[in-house]
Amino acid sequence: MARASLRENLVAAAVEQFHTHGYAAAGVKDITDAAGAPKGSFYNHFASKEALAVVALERYGASLRLEGLRDSSVAPLTRLRRHFEFLRDENIATEFNRGCLVGDFAVEVADHSEAVRESVRMSLEVWADALDFAIAEAQQAGDVSKTLEASTLARFVLSAWEGALISARADRSARAFEGFFTVVFGLILR
Amino acid sequence: MARASLRENLVAAAVEQFHTHGYAAAGVKDITDAAGAPKGSFYNHFASKEALAVVALERYGASLRLEGLRDSSVAPLTRLRRHFEFLRDENIATEFNRGCLVGDFAVEVADHSEAVRESVRMSLEVWADALDFAIAEAQQAGDVSKTLEASTLARFVLSAWEGALISARADRSARAFEGFFTVVFGLILR
Repeated sequence: MARASLRENLVAAAVEQFHTHGYAAAGVKDITDAAGAPKGSFYNHFASKEALAVVALERYGASLRLEGLRDSSVAPLTRLRRHFEFLRDENIATEFNRGCLVGDFAVEVADHSEAVRESVRMSLEVWADALDFAIAEAQQAGDVSKTLEASTLARFVLSAWEGALISARADRSARAFEGFFTVVFGLILR
Repeated sequence: MARASLRENLVAAAVEQFHTHGYAAAGVKDITDAAGAPKGSFYNHFASKEALAVVALERYGASLRLEGLRDSSVAPLTRLRRHFEFLRDENIATEFNRGCLVGDFAVEVADHSEAVRESVRMSLEVWADALDFAIAEAQQAGDVSKTLEASTLARFVLSAWEGALISARADRSARAFEGFFTVVFGLILR
């Protein structure tokens, strides 16, 4: 019991530390300190910081509320809009810092760790699949043109979101999010 | 003369080292070694690694061929397409590693350095202005709908590009670039 709980604390602390400081800048000691754990306990639970990063990314992915994109009680375009509104509001709440941990790891770690790169790739794939599901339903409902495939639109919209986070972070403003909603819901998903 | 040349070497080495390894992972010694300069010489030229990062970002910005977006001898949509084809081909040539130094710094450094954040913000602004110029000309020529403002489209397309680099890097493939060209030139800029 105690062990499982310590491991959980380490994962939660890692998500927070990686997201706030970045992968390179968040050391094992920062993570164990934040988890209230002795540094020596780290390697009882994880083979390396890299191995913890993969678990942290899975944990982060579970916080993205992808299940909402498959909730058939809500109209598909409404689901899509709410999904990005939720992500936007989270980013505004952290004052445009942090970005998305998936994109952060893609930029900072993917070139240097095959395990993290594969984990980022899978995270984006699962996310794009959930968007694809909602967009395909919107196409079936006649709310979005079928000119382009739902999977192409889903991957593009996800990239545009990751890019909007980059601009918002540089700009410390929600301007990039406004542009995202205007173009995605005014031009692309219609 | 010798001093100016050493400074140039340090800037060129910094662009390469930051782009390849990231900001945190590229140390001052890595940069002086790559420039063939003694480590002690660094602080004759730059107050800090952060100050060098700002200069490196300006240098990188000058390599983006933004001037091509204002070349009135070429049709505006052709300029826009060639601009992103050039960036795509560079990214394929580096095997989908590295991404864009502007986006890399936005993700890794902007939260932690006000000087770098401001430099990233300016880089994106100058880049978006050049895209805006070409898109506005395409609208004037009747090649792109005027429904949305050129500046909104320009900022969105730039974000979508930065996001496509994230996907390409995670995926080690050009698939995200294909989606970018399909949606940008098939749906947004028309």
